[in-house]
Amino acid sequence: MTYLDHAATTPVLPEVLAAMTEQWGRVGNASSLHASGRAARRAAEQGRERLAEAVGARPSEVLFTGGGTESDNLAVKGLYWARRDADQRRRRLVVSPAEHHAVLDSAEWLAKHDGAEVTWLRLEPTGRVTPDALADALGDGTDVAVASVMWANNEIGTVSDVAALAEVAHAVGVPLHTDAVQAVGQVPVDFGASGVDALTLTGHKLGGPMGAGALLLRRDAECVPLLHGGGQERDVRSGTLDVPAIVGLAVAATTAVAARPERAARLAALRDRLVAGVLEQVPDAQLNGPPLDDVVAGGPGRLPGNAHLSFPGAEGDALLMLLDARGIECSTGSACSAGVARPSHVLTAVGAQADRARSSLRFSLGSPSTDDDVDALLAVIAPVVERARRAGMGR
Amino acid sequence: MTYLDHAATTPVLPEVLAAMTEQWGRVGNASSLHASGRAARRAAEQGRERLAEAVGARPSEVLFTGGGTESDNLAVKGLYWARRDADQRRRRLVVSPAEHHAVLDSAEWLAKHDGAEVTWLRLEPTGRVTPDALADALGDGTDVAVASVMWANNEIGTVSDVAALAEVAHAVGVPLHTDAVQAVGQVPVDFGASGVDALTLTGHKLGGPMGAGALLLRRDAECVPLLHGGGQERDVRSGTLDVPAIVGLAVAATTAVAARPERAARLAALRDRLVAGVLEQVPDAQLNGPPLDDVVAGGPGRLPGNAHLSFPGAEGDALLMLLDARGIECSTGSACSAGVARPSHVLTAVGAQADRARSSLRFSLGSPSTDDDVDALLAVIAPVVERARRAGMGR
Repeated sequence: MTYLDHAATTPVLPEVLAAMTEQWGRVGNASSLHASGRAARRAAEQGRERLAEAVGARPSEVLFTGGGTESDNLAVKGLYWARRDADQRRRRLVVSPAEHHAVLDSAEWLAKHDGAEVTWLRLEPTGRVTPDALADALGDGTDVAVASVMWANNEIGTVSDVAALAEVAHAVGVPLHTDAVQAVGQVPVDFGASGVDALTLTGHKLGGPMGAGALLLRRDAECVPLLHGGGQERDVRSGTLDVPAIVGLAVAATTAVAARPERAARLAALRDRLVAGVLEQVPDAQLNGPPLDDVVAGGPGRLPGNAHLSFPGAEGDALLMLLDARGIECSTGSACSAGVARPSHVLTAVGAQADRARSSLRFSLGSPSTDDDVDALLAVIAPVVERARRAGMGR
Repeated sequence: MTYLDHAATTPVLPEVLAAMTEQWGRVGNASSLHASGRAARRAAEQGRERLAEAVGARPSEVLFTGGGTESDNLAVKGLYWARRDADQRRRRLVVSPAEHHAVLDSAEWLAKHDGAEVTWLRLEPTGRVTPDALADALGDGTDVAVASVMWANNEIGTVSDVAALAEVAHAVGVPLHTDAVQAVGQVPVDFGASGVDALTLTGHKLGGPMGAGALLLRRDAECVPLLHGGGQERDVRSGTLDVPAIVGLAVAATTAVAARPERAARLAALRDRLVAGVLEQVPDAQLNGPPLDDVVAGGPGRLPGNAHLSFPGAEGDALLMLLDARGIECSTGSACSAGVARPSHVLTAVGAQADRARSSLRFSLGSPSTDDDVDALLAVIAPVVERARRAGMGR
């Protein structure tokens, strides 16, 4: 089996599983005051320190959550409610149309349900939000609750200059949230240096567990809770701390970040070979997103493991299934929207026609990816595309 | 170490850990369309079927969440929003004052933030809500969004007649949510037969993983999502399905429910011996909650593993620490509120004076509990209480 869908989820690292298994062998609620409870608390706080260090945050800025979706919802809704409650004029959400649905749908729900107004950011054809586009959308900022621009796009791999965007937002007093689910471990992510106010990350894109994520939140950022209760996480997030998952997330983040320079270079080279090989086999295929050698703020402008291509005249779902039948696993876009027969909102947002958007595949590489995986794809892509095109014409 | 805090969290069962470890060895996002994704989906759906069967629900009624707190928040807020949006007159929340903070604080937040009004239910001295009390509070029901009464109380162990309460609520067209976090695996819980509209359960009180829970939700119950995004769970809950945790939760629930009759009888006998022994050693100690032999709706009226006692003249926190120093772990109330120096809201709600509320300890038994654990407590409780009383007088 050739797994080219690491952006959807990537295998748990053996060291993560070992650390979690050790923690599973202990009993204790991190909120309990007895010795077992205090030991669980120590493990959680050690996890918090390790995670914070891996991503340039202070431990007190780490709020553990149940994953990326919860972190995104908490940031968008919580910052909106807090900023609007402090000043009723602040009702605008300034959001990139290429965000993950956890951000998009949160913003749209607030608009429908809670008096918000969404301003969609203008995108470059690469999918990037420029500082100028953000400045234009924010205006003088007085009516803006929060802005949200992802660090790296999950479909077409565009990396943003988040620090420059944060500067623009702060110049008019607006907090910036960034969904960095795909960025952590793939490109350099330093929460403190970036200046952003809130950052979403999750475990299972890093070799960590599912069901474990974090929102990094500056101490001075007011945020209304989404989950009320025991108040475990700074009174911003309630719920029994999932200590084994926290331990696993911390090990995964530390490992992924430490290995990043070597891995990123290796995956970028593999990815370049994959794209060149596909374009050679299928000459009219089109690369979506930024050029492979794109640069932003001195770093890669595209996720090293991301290849996103359109195959004109072929349906993405047909391509996916034909590849799957040959043991090659990839996706048409975000796994979170899979099974929904509509063109990718990301490609649509960057101006692609519906046909092109519907004919695309995402190949995403991860730690275990090798030359053999690329060879396996290149061995079958031409006949698969030809067959999908014939099937499409027959309809 | 003598662990008498199983209501806070109980060890993961070996069969749960084995099932999760097997699943951790597989890659695949349950929303992905390729073979690995479909295998993950099958594992999740098998987990859904097993969990549903264990608690008398249909698989389509199971929404997986990140735990009890999230399920409670989703039920209270989601049902409130949906019912109020359908009819603006429905703004009342009818809630027992002995609920977990995840319910209480959700209700209070809706009151402060979103136009709700909370009606607190009258409690019996045992902590129970009678059908009459619910009927009185509901009135003709036209202005009520949702009612919430827990199946079993986490502090004093009171079991409610949830089926009778659901009947009363439905007679005036109001949906009933019940927090059954402490009930599943301890007393018979049948979602379908109970008639409730929404039921919260969680893994780590059952021998399953932390960070994994469910909301059982009737198909005809409209519920606004708390977490927006990919729409993975019936469009009511978004977030990548945490398949290993789901598998673990299903194994835990199946095992706990199957072993319940034997275990409940064993733990009730142990608990009775614990209470009798403490009262013998400390004659002025007082049992809180229902009598040990209490019966409700033909079943136990008190959780079999729950003993909650007040020790007049001694501070609960001092008792807890003195016992902990002797290797005995218990709690003063809910772990979720531990460290907060205020009398238990549950004891206050049943009419206990602040002194009594502050002088109490909860001993909660679980699967691994034995006669040795009870003996260990009984060997030290008298001198510990005496010492705590002396310390209290010295202040």
